[in-house]
Amino acid sequence: MLRYFTAGESHGEALVAFLSGMPAGLKIDQAFLDRELWRRQQGYGRGGRMKIERDSAHILSGVRQGMTIGSPISIQLENRDWKNWQESLPVGEGDPAKHKRVASPRPGHADLAGALKYNFPEARYVLERASARESAARVALGAIAKLFLRELGIEVLSHVVATGNVTFAGQVPWEEIRALHDRQYGREDVLLNCADPEAEQHMKDEVDKVLKTGDSLGGVFEVVAHQVPPGLGTYVQWDERLDALLAAAVMSLQAVKAVEIGAGVTAAFAPGSAVHDEIGYAATSGFTAFSAPATMLEVLKAAYPMDRKSACAAI
Amino acid sequence: MLRYFTAGESHGEALVAFLSGMPAGLKIDQAFLDRELWRRQQGYGRGGRMKIERDSAHILSGVRQGMTIGSPISIQLENRDWKNWQESLPVGEGDPAKHKRVASPRPGHADLAGALKYNFPEARYVLERASARESAARVALGAIAKLFLRELGIEVLSHVVATGNVTFAGQVPWEEIRALHDRQYGREDVLLNCADPEAEQHMKDEVDKVLKTGDSLGGVFEVVAHQVPPGLGTYVQWDERLDALLAAAVMSLQAVKAVEIGAGVTAAFAPGSAVHDEIGYAATSGFTAFSAPATMLEVLKAAYPMDRKSACAAI
Amino acid sequence: MLRYFTAGESHGEALVAFLSGMPAGLKIDQAFLDRELWRRQQGYGRGGRMKIERDSAHILSGVRQGMTIGSPISIQLENRDWKNWQESLPVGEGDPAKHKRVASPRPGHADLAGALKYNFPEARYVLERASARESAARVALGAIAKLFLRELGIEVLSHVVATGNVTFAGQVPWEEIRALHDRQYGREDVLLNCADPEAEQHMKDEVDKVLKTGDSLGGVFEVVAHQVPPGLGTYVQWDERLDALLAAAVMSLQAVKAVEIGAGVTAAFAPGSAVHDEIGYAATSGFTAFSAPATMLEVLKAAYPMDRKSACAAI
Amino acid sequence: MLRYFTAGESHGEALVAFLSGMPAGLKIDQAFLDRELWRRQQGYGRGGRMKIERDSAHILSGVRQGMTIGSPISIQLENRDWKNWQESLPVGEGDPAKHKRVASPRPGHADLAGALKYNFPEARYVLERASARESAARVALGAIAKLFLRELGIEVLSHVVATGNVTFAGQVPWEEIRALHDRQYGREDVLLNCADPEAEQHMKDEVDKVLKTGDSLGGVFEVVAHQVPPGLGTYVQWDERLDALLAAAVMSLQAVKAVEIGAGVTAAFAPGSAVHDEIGYAATSGFTAFSAPATMLEVLKAAYPMDRKSACAAI
Repeated sequence: MLRYFTAGESHGEALVAFLSGMPAGLKIDQAFLDRELWRRQQGYGRGGRMKIERDSAHILSGVRQGMTIGSPISIQLENRDWKNWQESLPVGEGDPAKHKRVASPRPGHADLAGALKYNFPEARYVLERASARESAARVALGAIAKLFLRELGIEVLSHVVATGNVTFAGQVPWEEIRALHDRQYGREDVLLNCADPEAEQHMKDEVDKVLKTGDSLGGVFEVVAHQVPPGLGTYVQWDERLDALLAAAVMSLQAVKAVEIGAGVTAAFAPGSAVHDEIGYAATSGFTAFSAPATMLEVLKAAYPMDRKSACAAI
Repeated sequence: MLRYFTAGESHGEALVAFLSGMPAGLKIDQAFLDRELWRRQQGYGRGGRMKIERDSAHILSGVRQGMTIGSPISIQLENRDWKNWQESLPVGEGDPAKHKRVASPRPGHADLAGALKYNFPEARYVLERASARESAARVALGAIAKLFLRELGIEVLSHVVATGNVTFAGQVPWEEIRALHDRQYGREDVLLNCADPEAEQHMKDEVDKVLKTGDSLGGVFEVVAHQVPPGLGTYVQWDERLDALLAAAVMSLQAVKAVEIGAGVTAAFAPGSAVHDEIGYAATSGFTAFSAPATMLEVLKAAYPMDRKSACAAI
Repeated sequence: MLRYFTAGESHGEALVAFLSGMPAGLKIDQAFLDRELWRRQQGYGRGGRMKIERDSAHILSGVRQGMTIGSPISIQLENRDWKNWQESLPVGEGDPAKHKRVASPRPGHADLAGALKYNFPEARYVLERASARESAARVALGAIAKLFLRELGIEVLSHVVATGNVTFAGQVPWEEIRALHDRQYGREDVLLNCADPEAEQHMKDEVDKVLKTGDSLGGVFEVVAHQVPPGLGTYVQWDERLDALLAAAVMSLQAVKAVEIGAGVTAAFAPGSAVHDEIGYAATSGFTAFSAPATMLEVLKAAYPMDRKSACAAI
Repeated sequence: MLRYFTAGESHGEALVAFLSGMPAGLKIDQAFLDRELWRRQQGYGRGGRMKIERDSAHILSGVRQGMTIGSPISIQLENRDWKNWQESLPVGEGDPAKHKRVASPRPGHADLAGALKYNFPEARYVLERASARESAARVALGAIAKLFLRELGIEVLSHVVATGNVTFAGQVPWEEIRALHDRQYGREDVLLNCADPEAEQHMKDEVDKVLKTGDSLGGVFEVVAHQVPPGLGTYVQWDERLDALLAAAVMSLQAVKAVEIGAGVTAAFAPGSAVHDEIGYAATSGFTAFSAPATMLEVLKAAYPMDRKSACAAI
């Protein structure tokens, strides 16, 4: 039903986000969009650019009187740094001498493959689009999707499970994830988004240590969707399966190199009896899928240090 | 370029595989297709049905004189068990009393969600399509895709990395994976597809032990594509990224609940310096991406017992 | 929501029709499917093959106990002539000397363009797939779509408006189109599907005359959808517009080279005041779009001999 | 390969055009884009708005140093009238009393159907997106497509064949269409784009006459693609056929209600012998498809006053 795309380069004039298929009549909360964009810009240890940009969603179409009207939504995110790049990255023909070459392809990025694919002598134009700056446009659209889901009583939140060797292994109940987000709301200082304050402090220490050496750090975050009705997606065709669609969406994010549904990774090292929830039924309460018993967690922890997560990212 | 779909139920008359977009002039090796179908049916510990089916790809269209002709390829895989199900699962109206209900939704399957989605009073029709039997149709199409890739010098093979607690942690060079497949070619006994004979024996023992208790076992397999040119997929749009497309394809397989690219999971717990391959360049040999040094493997093994894999499956 | 594809060649073993997305619980009337396939095979002046084939929809999947079950529907249409072509058009490698070349590309067909595209030395393989025989698979799927629309109170019928120079210019009310189809139901003789018996006789005479000379004849048919609710498709994006989707579906039929919505062709030669229906509103009856007054028809007839039609086909 | 979409409303801040899949390295001629946008704004008898807008393609992404770089191209077309509509059509919540209702749905437009579909109490928001102003975004993208085709030696031009009752029936050779466009290049006065100056004067007179009465006029234009290689599109699947794709693209334009390929409409009233080009072959010149002999035209003219055209538009 929904189709979405993004355009725009890291140091160009603007990013553009495009979304079609959103029903008419959805209330658009501009402050929520901008808050989500701000959240993307935070992150313990992020570079200085975040302070320059402070994104705001400039809605060009599809919204009137604060409501969607059925027509495609397009959003522009200005690159505030553009003024410093107009001479070296002009849209029209400019002075080639001012071009800032990226001659050493960076490992862990699309630089080399992209330059080979599009036949560029260096990696500047690849970097401009492959950069995770692009994800800002997706965040703006994701914020609209969240507003839509709210109308259906569904909420999607996330939290950090690991940074490098520091892992917070406990299962985090929905209420705690909810509370974590409420706690952060309106704050301007840089957070790490871990549900456990003590673990968060360890994570920050780990980040501080690594950054001093000029290195970076991998990490794991979990995305939880609350109150999702059963039956989204379908088993009838491979490309309509919810697992496949979710995996593609998450894996399309820059730097994400692994994704699991529920306890996917640990489940691979366990017997079926430890992995599958028992399904119960009672006339009064309908179907219930009980959580696996505590003993399963013990089994899994021996093989793998986490009990659930949804995406593994090497930042 | 290629579009593919499957149809067919587990105990219906046949599975149907559909593929459009394959160029004309590709030689189709029927024996290879059937060999791949046979490989899918093997697997240490598989149930008795595998002995009934012995699939063969019955090509209905798109191939003439052993060559593709540009038009859509359709393949029928007969369900040999169909004769035993015609009365309980007829296409036309039959005797409802002969319907075999599946009243207890099985955990770890689509039974409950599917019955709720399509409003069935029990899970028979869900089971029929959600079953991994469907993957036989994908194997037939995958075999054609492999024949196509061969023309481009690309080969795709796989091997088992873990079953339950038994993990073969070493990096397996391409030549060994190749040798593993040559070794198995033409054999009729049931294999486990691990590159290391000793580890394979441990895996078999593990399977034997678990099956005796009526339980099942998770596992991990790695798919390796050899001689792939850089630049497939692209960073320019989220839904064209190779990682996303691969993740969706693998995650759409029944029972797969996690997927990683390269060392995706372990990379999440490591610093960037241990994860990224160094890119070298020499006028004579062009670009080279060196494998990470041995020390990285040591770092990773401490956090996680495997050094690379591509898909984690809870069977 | 619905995705459909066909496979199969004109003288291969079978055609295959594939449809995904049809909701579960739709009653499938096998006799209606076969009746629709029979209708496709009729047509005043059709060749002898129609007598050989007498298609029947062999449903392989997606239907159980006479109802759709949500999983993809696949249908096989046997080519009864296949036994006569197995040696000259084998799927596997056969005797190349038995291949029946089509050395002269036929005008008005895809022969030449197809052979150039797929790099064939002659047009046999193009003819096999480009042939209008393929439309039989679409008719089977269309019959299912009609059964689905019936559940929504929508009916889609058609009639012939012109063959060559013989045109039946009057507007045909829905009731007459309905009556035409009722009249034909169950008959086995070859009809021409014109709503006016006298005009139909003239059309048959025209066909008789032309066939004697070894020539063929163009024609026009109108497809009418009855009780369609307003708001299908949408103006919000070019590729979601109903006009565009309908035009593509009709124009994708072999030999169709023009398509109009309503009085599209004649409207091109008329002032807006003669083309647009006046929209009325009353509290009791809601909106009404009145038909244009008779004088408009007079204006249009002067410029063009028909007052409405939906597709123009050169058979 | 190419995906394109548009966003934006008629009296909103801007239209946005989105194009992905264009190869890197294509030279983008900004003056050509703006010239094409100017051409769209002309047209004998167009209203006053055209003088306000004078569109210019503001490229936001995908182009650097005057060349495409592989990443998605996004273009903004400012609505210069926006300043006059900010209060009545604000993106955020504004004063509802300033909303300019469109209470009478206009015949021949999407007003009524759109308001019913999206559940609006009046048609303002439908009008804003359904308006043909949207096509400006498509023109900007079409200009880029034309630049791409030029690299392959293909050119696409158009001319007006009929306005109301005035029809220019002769076949117009490519050279004359080419000359027509050269003649117009750089001119600022309003043209009608008919290849024959005398017929053009008659057309203008017809337009003048009708406009005085407050009415509008239908018309026919022909689009000709020059030097197209055979084999674009394919007969192998219904939704990949070139005829279907072209018909959808043309029919998706506001006000277009009929489309034909070649002499599609007239062919419907003619015998096959008069419609099909004879295909010739000579070792030196390869295949040739001769134009139909003059006698065919005579036959067709009797039935229908034009000999070829590609789209019939009721303006």
